[in-house]
Amino acid sequence: MKMRANIFKGANKIGLEDRPIPKAGTGEAVVKVTLTTICGTDVHIMKGEYPVRAGQIIGHEPVGVIHELGDGVKGYKRGERVAINAITPCGQCGYCLSSNWAQCGGFLGGWKMGNTIDGCQADYVKIPNANANLAKIPDELSDEDVLFTTDIFSTGLSGAESADIKVGDIVSVFGQGPIGLSATAGAKLKGAALIITVDSIPTRIKMSKKMGGDIVLDYQKVDPVNEIMRITNGRGVDVAIEAVGLQESFENCVRCTRVGGTISSLGVYPAEIKKIGVPLPEFGYGIADKKIVSTLCPGGKERMRRLISLIKNERVNLKQFITHRFSLDEIEEAYRIFANQLDGVIKVAIKP
Amino acid sequence: MKMRANIFKGANKIGLEDRPIPKAGTGEAVVKVTLTTICGTDVHIMKGEYPVRAGQIIGHEPVGVIHELGDGVKGYKRGERVAINAITPCGQCGYCLSSNWAQCGGFLGGWKMGNTIDGCQADYVKIPNANANLAKIPDELSDEDVLFTTDIFSTGLSGAESADIKVGDIVSVFGQGPIGLSATAGAKLKGAALIITVDSIPTRIKMSKKMGGDIVLDYQKVDPVNEIMRITNGRGVDVAIEAVGLQESFENCVRCTRVGGTISSLGVYPAEIKKIGVPLPEFGYGIADKKIVSTLCPGGKERMRRLISLIKNERVNLKQFITHRFSLDEIEEAYRIFANQLDGVIKVAIKP
Amino acid sequence: MKMRANIFKGANKIGLEDRPIPKAGTGEAVVKVTLTTICGTDVHIMKGEYPVRAGQIIGHEPVGVIHELGDGVKGYKRGERVAINAITPCGQCGYCLSSNWAQCGGFLGGWKMGNTIDGCQADYVKIPNANANLAKIPDELSDEDVLFTTDIFSTGLSGAESADIKVGDIVSVFGQGPIGLSATAGAKLKGAALIITVDSIPTRIKMSKKMGGDIVLDYQKVDPVNEIMRITNGRGVDVAIEAVGLQESFENCVRCTRVGGTISSLGVYPAEIKKIGVPLPEFGYGIADKKIVSTLCPGGKERMRRLISLIKNERVNLKQFITHRFSLDEIEEAYRIFANQLDGVIKVAIKP
Amino acid sequence: MKMRANIFKGANKIGLEDRPIPKAGTGEAVVKVTLTTICGTDVHIMKGEYPVRAGQIIGHEPVGVIHELGDGVKGYKRGERVAINAITPCGQCGYCLSSNWAQCGGFLGGWKMGNTIDGCQADYVKIPNANANLAKIPDELSDEDVLFTTDIFSTGLSGAESADIKVGDIVSVFGQGPIGLSATAGAKLKGAALIITVDSIPTRIKMSKKMGGDIVLDYQKVDPVNEIMRITNGRGVDVAIEAVGLQESFENCVRCTRVGGTISSLGVYPAEIKKIGVPLPEFGYGIADKKIVSTLCPGGKERMRRLISLIKNERVNLKQFITHRFSLDEIEEAYRIFANQLDGVIKVAIKP
Repeated sequence: MKMRANIFKGANKIGLEDRPIPKAGTGEAVVKVTLTTICGTDVHIMKGEYPVRAGQIIGHEPVGVIHELGDGVKGYKRGERVAINAITPCGQCGYCLSSNWAQCGGFLGGWKMGNTIDGCQADYVKIPNANANLAKIPDELSDEDVLFTTDIFSTGLSGAESADIKVGDIVSVFGQGPIGLSATAGAKLKGAALIITVDSIPTRIKMSKKMGGDIVLDYQKVDPVNEIMRITNGRGVDVAIEAVGLQESFENCVRCTRVGGTISSLGVYPAEIKKIGVPLPEFGYGIADKKIVSTLCPGGKERMRRLISLIKNERVNLKQFITHRFSLDEIEEAYRIFANQLDGVIKVAIKP
Repeated sequence: MKMRANIFKGANKIGLEDRPIPKAGTGEAVVKVTLTTICGTDVHIMKGEYPVRAGQIIGHEPVGVIHELGDGVKGYKRGERVAINAITPCGQCGYCLSSNWAQCGGFLGGWKMGNTIDGCQADYVKIPNANANLAKIPDELSDEDVLFTTDIFSTGLSGAESADIKVGDIVSVFGQGPIGLSATAGAKLKGAALIITVDSIPTRIKMSKKMGGDIVLDYQKVDPVNEIMRITNGRGVDVAIEAVGLQESFENCVRCTRVGGTISSLGVYPAEIKKIGVPLPEFGYGIADKKIVSTLCPGGKERMRRLISLIKNERVNLKQFITHRFSLDEIEEAYRIFANQLDGVIKVAIKP
Repeated sequence: MKMRANIFKGANKIGLEDRPIPKAGTGEAVVKVTLTTICGTDVHIMKGEYPVRAGQIIGHEPVGVIHELGDGVKGYKRGERVAINAITPCGQCGYCLSSNWAQCGGFLGGWKMGNTIDGCQADYVKIPNANANLAKIPDELSDEDVLFTTDIFSTGLSGAESADIKVGDIVSVFGQGPIGLSATAGAKLKGAALIITVDSIPTRIKMSKKMGGDIVLDYQKVDPVNEIMRITNGRGVDVAIEAVGLQESFENCVRCTRVGGTISSLGVYPAEIKKIGVPLPEFGYGIADKKIVSTLCPGGKERMRRLISLIKNERVNLKQFITHRFSLDEIEEAYRIFANQLDGVIKVAIKP
Repeated sequence: MKMRANIFKGANKIGLEDRPIPKAGTGEAVVKVTLTTICGTDVHIMKGEYPVRAGQIIGHEPVGVIHELGDGVKGYKRGERVAINAITPCGQCGYCLSSNWAQCGGFLGGWKMGNTIDGCQADYVKIPNANANLAKIPDELSDEDVLFTTDIFSTGLSGAESADIKVGDIVSVFGQGPIGLSATAGAKLKGAALIITVDSIPTRIKMSKKMGGDIVLDYQKVDPVNEIMRITNGRGVDVAIEAVGLQESFENCVRCTRVGGTISSLGVYPAEIKKIGVPLPEFGYGIADKKIVSTLCPGGKERMRRLISLIKNERVNLKQFITHRFSLDEIEEAYRIFANQLDGVIKVAIKP
């Protein structure tokens, strides 16, 4: 039995190949993929900037239908619609049992699909630790409704959660790509009184307002830190969320955070810079009671249940991130559009 | 009425002068100082590295007896023995009402004595916001017993508290000067299962063991990060506390902290370096779920009551930090010994 | 200088009398009241159920204009518009310095106005600890906009905060009087995915939906616990908020809360019942990991600043609670309507 | 292959019978028991007060050696010494993935051994979810050293943890049976400044002092609440831990807890009383900001690793709880002694 799968073949070489449909081992499930997407991380993989094995299927954001259940997987049946998060913890190691599910087994260990095992830009995908990771989709929600619970919304929201945003806080979010937009939605859900976002791309600025941005600063027109300090009468924000992954935006976050406030870092910083620098005057030389937190996407089926519940009850609308739709056969074109941010793309949907 | 007071006269110039005994205004108290000490910060002031007004009385760690109570100060009477923390919050500003007492009114604003107002290396000192800051000393405790609650113990303990050390955690503390030793005591009080400390000065190594260091690493003999990784089987510590204030020790903290763990920064970093660098591989490029927290000394009379209660009930013995005793007249000699870390000094006690 | 003031004269006897305009002592302010309201607690006072001194001015929810500033009050000037919370902490006692501002000085000690000192159903009111308690009102907000930050909204929101509602939680709120409605708004602000509220009065049911109730159960038509268990597939809610103050509703909260969940109690229970009973099977005989938290209204000017910021940024609209408006001269009629819940009243506004 | 096993045969009927040695299924392990004990809960089971299936093997606190590993169990080998907590979570259900491991799958669901499946008062025991539950024992620790990590120490410590005891708190612990003694040790580990314990049995009073009780009140000689209020100058304790499971001691906890403090309930309350009553005046009629938390024993191998680490590093000595030692053949006698609290028994050790 064959299926189509998007294969990483070496730097800047991806493309469909035929592969055998996977078989579910003990504790595993095989899911027929009905919708997936491309993540910024997939672009890094494609470019050879993040190392995965040549020949591996990439993609880590599957929505689909249960095709096969391995031994020991209980409470599910073939044909049920499920979404699976990029992070698939085992639930049973020391890290998982310390609530560090994303770091299952060690650094970044919760991220398996499309990283250390075959991923989901394919007709079928094998899900490890299926008992802990298959999240059922309510009938009233479409695949598109829940697509972004599989990574970016969980990640963006976690930036607001890890920062412990309080009802009434003033929050800034640097970067309004998909993760940053999700962080904006997260800040709104946490009860921020005022959300100031920063980007310069028109489609993102427009979407930022829809997701909860009260004030959207275009960093090509104003200095965002100066502007935030002006808006907050020199006090700064309670929480600044970094959703770019660059020294400059990290630094801006430290600069605009009030004494006693929190910088929440979601970006993945480039290995070349070796260190991110915390600017000392604004970090109060270490005695300003500021905090820096960093967060990887929380996964597992319970997290997914909660995120899906937010969508079902219309707390957030993520479907509107989809600006482009492709079939699996068009995946190379989808990468081209997404990787180069062409045509006002925010997120793409890929339908096998 | 005159008193003796240690005056900052310009870089590297301090010394006793006669000054009028202060008068208590509304909400203030004047305390006759019976014991005080010299802080690392005072040394920075003396050297001109931290700016205070020339002519100002320095010192911020007073133990004494109430001499005069201003209008509106209630619940105290003349003659009572009190200790006052370096941090004297007003309790009534936006920062204080957000539980950011140390940052009363803004960055570093809780630190008033010897910084923005006259300090306590003198026969008398005026205490602002006396209702919030005079902590009574139980009869059974001596001045020396409580001396270090006024700054270093509160600071060191807060490094353990801000890191949210859990019972059973593995903790490392870099630097076993007075703050680091207090952080070690704090880690012990928080229930750390294993405490690994780092220093190289023999008297500090010895004291570190007394304060709770299970393993004390001499960084001149071993690479502390390698050694910590070896001891923890490659996992790293749950919490690393930085109590030096240098790039290298900060970096070591990030390096030896486990995925999902916390770096607690107590050191004051030198303005010259502009930025402290967070090493990216060990910070997991921003996605290792690591946290960096920083803390200024918590003050106020309730904090003091709790710290004094720990001493009264023999949870910690801070008096043993006193290696040298001087009269106020000998204060220049005391600075010489302490600033140059001569003669195995840990802390000095100054008796006016 | 005389003013009108609503006086408690003994059980069921209240009414306007002339009183001298108060004078601001050290740390105090006198505020000319421009708007106030009647609280459920005021009704208990009127009926003699909660003891206050006969002859005292009642009322504890003032909005007004600064009339006089006492010695030591800084950062304000005569004529500024301010709102003051029912809870006016000193900020300087052991309780305040432990973040227990509502319990300033001891049980219920934060509540001073209309309880232990003269209140604000009058032309003028004296505010204790003015530095900690005068919250400025932005020009763009009317008195009516901010009126309910002075008590009920702070209280209701705190029920959601103390319960530590997480984004994605399912929450029930028992009782949709003014406090319960505010708790519903609070649950929404905290990011609850589904909010199930319980009441039976038509105007409250209607308002409940406006404040965030997704499902409003009429307890005269359905058994709310059964219904909640049905809706949640037998799991129960993550958080149940009690906003009635009766054994039955408290018990219902315990009954419908999931294993590991939290009951948040806002109601004031009647002294006659001596004990509130925690039903054992649903409390899991003590081993279901359930929590019961109780909360008094958080006050102080920083809390007020945050609440006002939520209103300014249109996170919540409290003005719509005002169903009836009276002049101070009509206050007895206002009590009659409000105490007897006539005419679909939710809250009244009193304009001196 | 036969083994001996202690069987529940009906109310007040237990005793050894021969049973087949269990076989490890997928994800399971079989452990040869080298040491176990009797829990208060076992006594309830024996008396027929807590329902288990007649014919079931009882006991839930095993220390032993791995005998057989089922399919999918990784990272272990036959012959390794392990301890297993009474609570054996799956790690993969919605409750586990919400950090409610003790309530795995629903109320009390984490407790399987000797409850819903065969237990460990036997030569061998089958461990479910072995990957999540087998905790290795370091060579330097004996079976007796770690025996009480399997239930009572985890439970008692969790009473201190759930209450969020802060360094410097004053804590009372009602009941100094094995759980209460462990809670006392937990309060000490959390940094309580003063620990006041309550019991009347001489051996417990003596042991209480060893575990951290600064003041031990004999409730047959003094009224413990009055005495605690006297010692705390009328303020009450920050945290009161209930470790008896009776209305009276629960009530005493509420009574002696300060405004804003926490009651931590560990006891299992008798089903007959239907409700536990929260005394209203001392609960401040619901507005004293008091909290009541309840906790079931946290289990799983990571919890066990941490507890064992505390013992290895001599933070706590639990072995001293063993007052009586029996072979498995003597188990009926062991129950007689333990159930009737004869001969100053604290805990028994049973060696198969």
